Amino acid sequence: MTDKASTRENLEALDREDCLAAFRYRFDLPNDTIYLDGNSLGAMPRSTPARIDWVVRQEWRNDLNASWWKHNWLDLPRRIGDKIARILGADEGEVIVSDSTSLNLFKLLVGALQLMAGRGTILSDSSNFPGDLYVAQSAARAQNRKLRIVAPARLVDELDEDVAVVMFSQVDFRTGRLVELRPVAEQAHAVGALVLCDLSHSAGVMPLALGHDGIDLAVGCGYKFLNGGPGAPAFMYVANRLLHSIENPIWGWLGHAETFAFEAEYRPDSSIARFLVGCPPILSLIALEEGIDLLLEADLHAVRRKSVALTSRFIDLLRQEWGDDGPEILSPLDGRRRGSQVAIRHPLASRIVRALSENGVIAEFRAPDIIRFGFAPLYVCYADIWDSSQILKRVTHQVDADRRVAPATAKV
Amino acid sequence: MTDKASTRENLEALDREDCLAAFRYRFDLPNDTIYLDGNSLGAMPRSTPARIDWVVRQEWRNDLNASWWKHNWLDLPRRIGDKIARILGADEGEVIVSDSTSLNLFKLLVGALQLMAGRGTILSDSSNFPGDLYVAQSAARAQNRKLRIVAPARLVDELDEDVAVVMFSQVDFRTGRLVELRPVAEQAHAVGALVLCDLSHSAGVMPLALGHDGIDLAVGCGYKFLNGGPGAPAFMYVANRLLHSIENPIWGWLGHAETFAFEAEYRPDSSIARFLVGCPPILSLIALEEGIDLLLEADLHAVRRKSVALTSRFIDLLRQEWGDDGPEILSPLDGRRRGSQVAIRHPLASRIVRALSENGVIAEFRAPDIIRFGFAPLYVCYADIWDSSQILKRVTHQVDADRRVAPATAKV
Repeated sequence: MTDKASTRENLEALDREDCLAAFRYRFDLPNDTIYLDGNSLGAMPRSTPARIDWVVRQEWRNDLNASWWKHNWLDLPRRIGDKIARILGADEGEVIVSDSTSLNLFKLLVGALQLMAGRGTILSDSSNFPGDLYVAQSAARAQNRKLRIVAPARLVDELDEDVAVVMFSQVDFRTGRLVELRPVAEQAHAVGALVLCDLSHSAGVMPLALGHDGIDLAVGCGYKFLNGGPGAPAFMYVANRLLHSIENPIWGWLGHAETFAFEAEYRPDSSIARFLVGCPPILSLIALEEGIDLLLEADLHAVRRKSVALTSRFIDLLRQEWGDDGPEILSPLDGRRRGSQVAIRHPLASRIVRALSENGVIAEFRAPDIIRFGFAPLYVCYADIWDSSQILKRVTHQVDADRRVAPATAKV
Repeated sequence: MTDKASTRENLEALDREDCLAAFRYRFDLPNDTIYLDGNSLGAMPRSTPARIDWVVRQEWRNDLNASWWKHNWLDLPRRIGDKIARILGADEGEVIVSDSTSLNLFKLLVGALQLMAGRGTILSDSSNFPGDLYVAQSAARAQNRKLRIVAPARLVDELDEDVAVVMFSQVDFRTGRLVELRPVAEQAHAVGALVLCDLSHSAGVMPLALGHDGIDLAVGCGYKFLNGGPGAPAFMYVANRLLHSIENPIWGWLGHAETFAFEAEYRPDSSIARFLVGCPPILSLIALEEGIDLLLEADLHAVRRKSVALTSRFIDLLRQEWGDDGPEILSPLDGRRRGSQVAIRHPLASRIVRALSENGVIAEFRAPDIIRFGFAPLYVCYADIWDSSQILKRVTHQVDADRRVAPATAKV
């Protein structure tokens, strides 16, 4: 990485030096589009349509029900889980693919609360994804505990011996603030609490080391930086040391030790497969595996370096090109504290996102006034940073000008 | 339908008269195969691969995250649910597609138990699908109730005022025994209990009238007679009269009244959408919709008539061709009491199923000694009944002869 000023020329030079540049051609992206929303839905790997078509036309069509064994459909949750384990810095057998992030969170939270019988609290923070907080509300209710939500900066300070599990998102879905995992785990373990983190916005975009960092439990989704397709099944992680004791509160036939023995009584599988419940959606699982396989070809350290460079350059350009008129930047300015996104605040955010889209830049509006730009280093290039920041500046000025001309219709 | 003897000639004549015959060509089946396992995994509709490919290459690839609104991905669970409602004899808004059968069962059972606070029992019977019983064990545990399992014939007799919910499968997955819904609902309601049934083996293969029959809650899977593809998402039904009161015990962002408002507190949707939890697997949902759309073209009364004729003819042939040597038939002999399958018992069942497969007939082995033949009237024809019964007779005699010749290796 060079420290030269962020001119388009210099950014193009960075693209020529980029060891990840070739990955861009492994994705099929729409023409004339700069896609800065891969943290909502990852782009389509070029190989995915043919892979799905094969599974549909060959496996399902030809081998029908026998495919569960012949083509190892039954094994997909574990097989893909083991691949994701490599992305998370986890061991084989510690990760499985199953259901949705929310459902996995419910299973793990209730399982954790059952383990920690004497403790009354799930601790989380207000920057956590609201969906995760809803799940936690229901898990707390189911187990007759309470959910305590504190300010993000206070999360570690609020740990005490009543906390059964502390739960947070590694990357704040709004601001992109990145939480360092190991200190949280150390503090939590010091008071005897378990640590559960949601990796939805970090998995696939930075090297992770869940084992080394002492994380107990984790969940994450497959459709963002894992490029698994819309609504791709989610993953869950359970540290080996907990696998002998934590239970899945929802007992399903796929989590049974002998699914096809059809025993009368539930008997949980001894592995993480006990967290499976019902039949998994094979077509969506196959698409997920294709995204994972592609990602496993990339060096995640290089991915992280490029991610930090992209977001840093983008922030530089917002400040350099706009001067004091620039938008308020919500994301941490220190790259080490930032996930692969930049969030800005603007009162006309919704309208600006629409205008960006009309000009070929896809970003995301988050109510009430946030614009979120996600940078997937496998298919976003440095020149995109220049182009998107220029377009952002132009459409923002236009939207501002429109508001001044026609205030009555300027309401978002 | 004719009452003539089941010769191949007469069966071919029935095929020529069959108003459903053309549906066979709407499915893409492997050559030289008689597929009698559509009650495990339905066959592939010819239109499905192109539909999935379109969603992948056009919607995901081109419109990316905007597809959630532009292509109504967000609406799929309700849209497909409303289509399934027509198959179930339910009203619009009473059915939604979500997760797996097991997870939907968990949500509904816990929801039902919460509604019925003063009652201590989930009542079910020993013929119910083991996976459903496992779910019920965990729901009972979660709500501090008990699961009482009785003999199938005793289900209605064992109803009392401690029963919160009576839960059963409409069609026994082993024997094919079909339960008449209305009498169970009437008896259950007489003691104030709720009725929950699993329609996995009945939906799509007979007309249903959940509303008329007074069923309160139901679940079912998408990958059998709905032909939704491997592991297709499942459906759930909640009678309108319960929708204002029953809660989903797992609070997820997709079940929130305003998913994208990202409110701090969970606030359930007022519709059945409150039973959604996390992000649905779009590719698998699309395949399901394709199967449902095809099924909606068929007259379910005609489907049921053909289903009864196919299973009756198959039983006739087993008795007519084998005489007293015939296998034990586990399925009810009265067609009105039978789902769309015939089950037989044989000590070498596993080996016979393998030999059938080698001879182009796909049936299913269910441990320890059951062979299950499923008849999907949209793609199984009358001539298949003749051919498969002849092959069954031949391979059974061969397997029996092998056992007599080499008893030491004949162990299953």
